[in-house]
Amino acid sequence: MESPAETRRYVLPHIARMEGYVPGEQPQGGTFIKLNTNENPYPPSSRVKQALVEAVTDGLRLYPDPSGLAFRKTAAALHGVEPDMILAGNGSDDVLTILTRTFVGPGDLAAFPTPSYLLYSTLISLQDGRAHVVPFDADWRLDLDAFRAPGVRLVYLANPNSPSGTAIAPAEVAALAERLDCPLVVDEAYGDFARENCIALLKDHPNVIVTRSFSKGYSLAGLRLGYLVADAGIVAELNKVKDSYNCDALSLAAGKAALEDQAYLAETRSKILATRSRLADALRQSGRTVTDSQANFVWATGGPAPEATFQELKRRSIFVRLMRYPGYPAGLRISVGTDAEIDRLLEVLRDLP
Amino acid sequence: MESPAETRRYVLPHIARMEGYVPGEQPQGGTFIKLNTNENPYPPSSRVKQALVEAVTDGLRLYPDPSGLAFRKTAAALHGVEPDMILAGNGSDDVLTILTRTFVGPGDLAAFPTPSYLLYSTLISLQDGRAHVVPFDADWRLDLDAFRAPGVRLVYLANPNSPSGTAIAPAEVAALAERLDCPLVVDEAYGDFARENCIALLKDHPNVIVTRSFSKGYSLAGLRLGYLVADAGIVAELNKVKDSYNCDALSLAAGKAALEDQAYLAETRSKILATRSRLADALRQSGRTVTDSQANFVWATGGPAPEATFQELKRRSIFVRLMRYPGYPAGLRISVGTDAEIDRLLEVLRDLP
Repeated sequence: MESPAETRRYVLPHIARMEGYVPGEQPQGGTFIKLNTNENPYPPSSRVKQALVEAVTDGLRLYPDPSGLAFRKTAAALHGVEPDMILAGNGSDDVLTILTRTFVGPGDLAAFPTPSYLLYSTLISLQDGRAHVVPFDADWRLDLDAFRAPGVRLVYLANPNSPSGTAIAPAEVAALAERLDCPLVVDEAYGDFARENCIALLKDHPNVIVTRSFSKGYSLAGLRLGYLVADAGIVAELNKVKDSYNCDALSLAAGKAALEDQAYLAETRSKILATRSRLADALRQSGRTVTDSQANFVWATGGPAPEATFQELKRRSIFVRLMRYPGYPAGLRISVGTDAEIDRLLEVLRDLP
Repeated sequence: MESPAETRRYVLPHIARMEGYVPGEQPQGGTFIKLNTNENPYPPSSRVKQALVEAVTDGLRLYPDPSGLAFRKTAAALHGVEPDMILAGNGSDDVLTILTRTFVGPGDLAAFPTPSYLLYSTLISLQDGRAHVVPFDADWRLDLDAFRAPGVRLVYLANPNSPSGTAIAPAEVAALAERLDCPLVVDEAYGDFARENCIALLKDHPNVIVTRSFSKGYSLAGLRLGYLVADAGIVAELNKVKDSYNCDALSLAAGKAALEDQAYLAETRSKILATRSRLADALRQSGRTVTDSQANFVWATGGPAPEATFQELKRRSIFVRLMRYPGYPAGLRISVGTDAEIDRLLEVLRDLP
């Protein structure tokens, strides 16, 4: 009989070689200020909570609508597109997984900028594909022609980007789409906090695919819901790849209610943008360099050593994200919390050695 | 500029060729008797509904525990294994997807019996793998040696099986595991209704992986939760492949509460087994052949033409599943509903021409 360790030899070699994606720390329980994974500091809309409680019925014994039609109709109306241009996913990570499985095969190239969302690289590795990495310059601008390597099958662009919080203007995204002979995934997980978005590009650029999340703007990270807006022909293919019942009845009901409460989104967004501005100013006054963020976090480099600051904050139960990308200065990515949380953070930062 | 139809050429060829998996019909709204996708006719445990309502808090703004530790501890205790032998998924279909992506690469063989769960073939195709299909004989028995084709990387065994409802005894499953040089996935989606299960096999057979669902025994198809029990070394590899946050906070809370209410499971199971027996007897009396089901459905062949019966039932808003597998007689797979639903079904069947 074989030993348990031997079971690892059954695993596909490219997966056995992988380290696995490590998500930001999710401390459970206890008292802390959590500014490390860009959750929204405000609660979900009361209409969402009401929709959820109402959806907890005996009907949970039945499978959900596999296509999430009621949700898709609401999302389509919000964006002025047709429901067959919407695909719902179990979080926008599920949507990104579906996209990668549809377009990137073993040995294929897929491109993304760096520093950016680390998951893209993991998703490509899971397909045994190869990453074509395009560096941001020091001002967080991109050389669009650098994405045009032969054989690139998919391009991901987090816009606004993480960790920088910066955004590429829609006209420049359009120029990138026109240069590509493959789909361009514009990952708008942070789009609810930005000045502009790229959904209007779909009309003239059928290779543009825009993904959205409920984890940031809508305060529903715990629920796992995301969606994409794309050409209907692409959505039809993606539907073959997604699990039939990838979205549950509760998250679909919550997502619909969240989209229907745009007033609440506007209210919490406006508070977050005001706090973001105050946080960025204070960090700049402390000698740090802070980008012009269009997301619900700020990116601070320079000034007091980020590594030491990160550890000191953690000792005081304040979690931020220390990020180090080769060739770029290390920095702290700090989620925009409530005013009280940010006051406390700034107070601690002032007192650090 | 390209036309939308042209976007299809971006899709990987093996996916563009696929038809896509078609789940059983999920009529939304209206009045009907739904006996086509093996949902549980009884509501979820009241403790589950209470746990769900209590979990609808402002805490939904936070990401869930990516590993679902509290849920895994409960599942591990129930099965007498360690928590690192449990992996939770967004439905047992997500678990099957993760398994397929971990073990089956392009061109690789994966084996499963026929007639059985149609999804296995779809999952293999999504990986651009090749299916090695092993036929059941007329008595729903398997030639275990037939699974041993060279190069088989994964074997799926729905046990109890669908559509037959029959089960292979654990000793025979062990004999199959011993013949294989790859993982054997024992899909126990219907295990809560069976006389025996295969979890005890893991102790001496580290290549056995048992998957479980909350959609059948626990009446939570709408929630999407499943899990697997496997060697800890295998689980560590599968964790690389799953989406970090594949299970949401509500389903993890509900799943834990469901597992903790084994008395309710026993009560509804017992009612379903009694109704199943009555349904099978009545169908046999009508001249049909009905297998010895260990699931929450029965499989009826012979007697009045299944195709015509299916259509007549549908006209009367009773949905059952008509299944045709090449080389086998067509049949009706009928979920075990409430006594009232089955009374109505039998009444309609008696009156059919």
